Amino acid sequence: MPLAFADRLIQRVRALGHPLCAGLDPHLEHLPALFREGSMSPGEPATARAVERFCLAFLDRVAFRVSIVKPQSAFFEQLGPAGVGVLARMMVAARERGLLVLLDAKRGDIGSTAEGYAAAYLRKDAPMLADALTVNPWLGLETLEPYFDAAAESGGGVFTLVKTSNPGSGDFQDRSVTGSPLHLHLADSLAERAGRLAGRETGWSGVGAVVGATKPEQARLVREHLPNGLILVPGYGYQGGAASDAVAGFVPGPDGRLEGGVVSSSRGVLFPAAAAGARSAGEWERAIDSALEAAIQDLGRAVEA
Amino acid sequence: MPLAFADRLIQRVRALGHPLCAGLDPHLEHLPALFREGSMSPGEPATARAVERFCLAFLDRVAFRVSIVKPQSAFFEQLGPAGVGVLARMMVAARERGLLVLLDAKRGDIGSTAEGYAAAYLRKDAPMLADALTVNPWLGLETLEPYFDAAAESGGGVFTLVKTSNPGSGDFQDRSVTGSPLHLHLADSLAERAGRLAGRETGWSGVGAVVGATKPEQARLVREHLPNGLILVPGYGYQGGAASDAVAGFVPGPDGRLEGGVVSSSRGVLFPAAAAGARSAGEWERAIDSALEAAIQDLGRAVEA
Repeated sequence: MPLAFADRLIQRVRALGHPLCAGLDPHLEHLPALFREGSMSPGEPATARAVERFCLAFLDRVAFRVSIVKPQSAFFEQLGPAGVGVLARMMVAARERGLLVLLDAKRGDIGSTAEGYAAAYLRKDAPMLADALTVNPWLGLETLEPYFDAAAESGGGVFTLVKTSNPGSGDFQDRSVTGSPLHLHLADSLAERAGRLAGRETGWSGVGAVVGATKPEQARLVREHLPNGLILVPGYGYQGGAASDAVAGFVPGPDGRLEGGVVSSSRGVLFPAAAAGARSAGEWERAIDSALEAAIQDLGRAVEA
Repeated sequence: MPLAFADRLIQRVRALGHPLCAGLDPHLEHLPALFREGSMSPGEPATARAVERFCLAFLDRVAFRVSIVKPQSAFFEQLGPAGVGVLARMMVAARERGLLVLLDAKRGDIGSTAEGYAAAYLRKDAPMLADALTVNPWLGLETLEPYFDAAAESGGGVFTLVKTSNPGSGDFQDRSVTGSPLHLHLADSLAERAGRLAGRETGWSGVGAVVGATKPEQARLVREHLPNGLILVPGYGYQGGAASDAVAGFVPGPDGRLEGGVVSSSRGVLFPAAAAGARSAGEWERAIDSALEAAIQDLGRAVEA
């Protein structure tokens, strides 16, 4: 049996003392001048090379300072097959640097197609193996099983989209069904499955949930319904979520700190304003380090509360 | 203004007299012996080559006999970056053969990430340009806008997952909200947006819906709520849907035939039993041609009704 994802993640988080997850969303238009090559149009090989150099340099900054990175598949797919190649190499490079990889691909399909996505990203022999994957539940709970199966075999995690923080997230997630919002019914269903990916060391489960950072009350409710599932909180720092709100779904761990998931910052640490105009690698590195340090301190304080 | 996807599709369907869409789901385990290379493990270059030869040979069979092909992204992603390269080349090869391409990738994300997916597959300059894309609405209606925007610009189509036919599809899609199932509320919301991708020639709209083939009554209801949106009906032939059920959401067109979408067959035409043991290219071609002809006749009769 491989060590469960939940154990691997939470042990790293405890050792580092903060739950920061570094988002890897290489928006072309935000890539600093230092890294740009040619016209930066999505189809050009030079563009994929520029993105690769940028992501690698960033991975070098976050190694041993965060427990996990979250590449956003869309920004690599946007560059075509060459971009997917960059993503695959970045996932390997991250793991080589001791980082866990949570691939944010939000996949969702039925039957053998869901198995295809699980085979692509979660099965032990996956060509683009991630430690965890985000998945979409709209097609039904049964369609999540292939991801749980593959993750159980490889020691992976599966974060289901439970409650997002975008303006329209209520259209379906908040619809009232027998008196409570649909996303809490979903959290209940995930809780029933939490045993599938439970970590023996920490008690946390890799049957996780994505819960937006902007509404702390919602995160607390999801936590009540999904007591052992890890929570991925996106949107910290950029979408308006404060650190204390971001950890609203966390609970006190054995060391007294709040734990139970990770908080992802993408633009805040990847594209800090000071890095945009950096004229040397050293200048860019200092800007990234300082943005990282600020986020780490901020979240570290929030979990001490 | 490019010609709208709905016009391009429906004009082809009318000319051919049937709504068959050929699914391109290259399951490794079903690839006929004739095409297999090496161990066929997902990570090997030989495997991607075998899949590419198979898909190309299949495209040659369906060219000018169906209006549209539907590659299933998962089966290419499962082969890693090399597989995504094959997918990209297959999409180009299909378009070179006069076929429309509906990429079944079921993407769904928020804000700039949704824009990333739209840029990858629907925008005029997309590196993997599809004529239409399947998308997932769980994160909210607002998250579908980037796809509609990109499709409006490129003359594309967007098929939103409204009601699937898998056993668990009711978990969320059928939840009763103010007296009617959630998927009909979704159909209403799409209907409000149908003007965005309306075809001038046919009156149909590329603001489409995916509606499973197994429950004709549901398809008729979705059609009532989404009168002008194209419907993609997957699951014909394999998941148990009969031709008459598959076209339940279609309505009489100007030539008297039922129209309003396409019906996708994947395994039925891609992996007919007779093709599995084919010992020569000719034998395989005859097996595919005969499976195609059977599906075309079957659906052709159903739309004459």
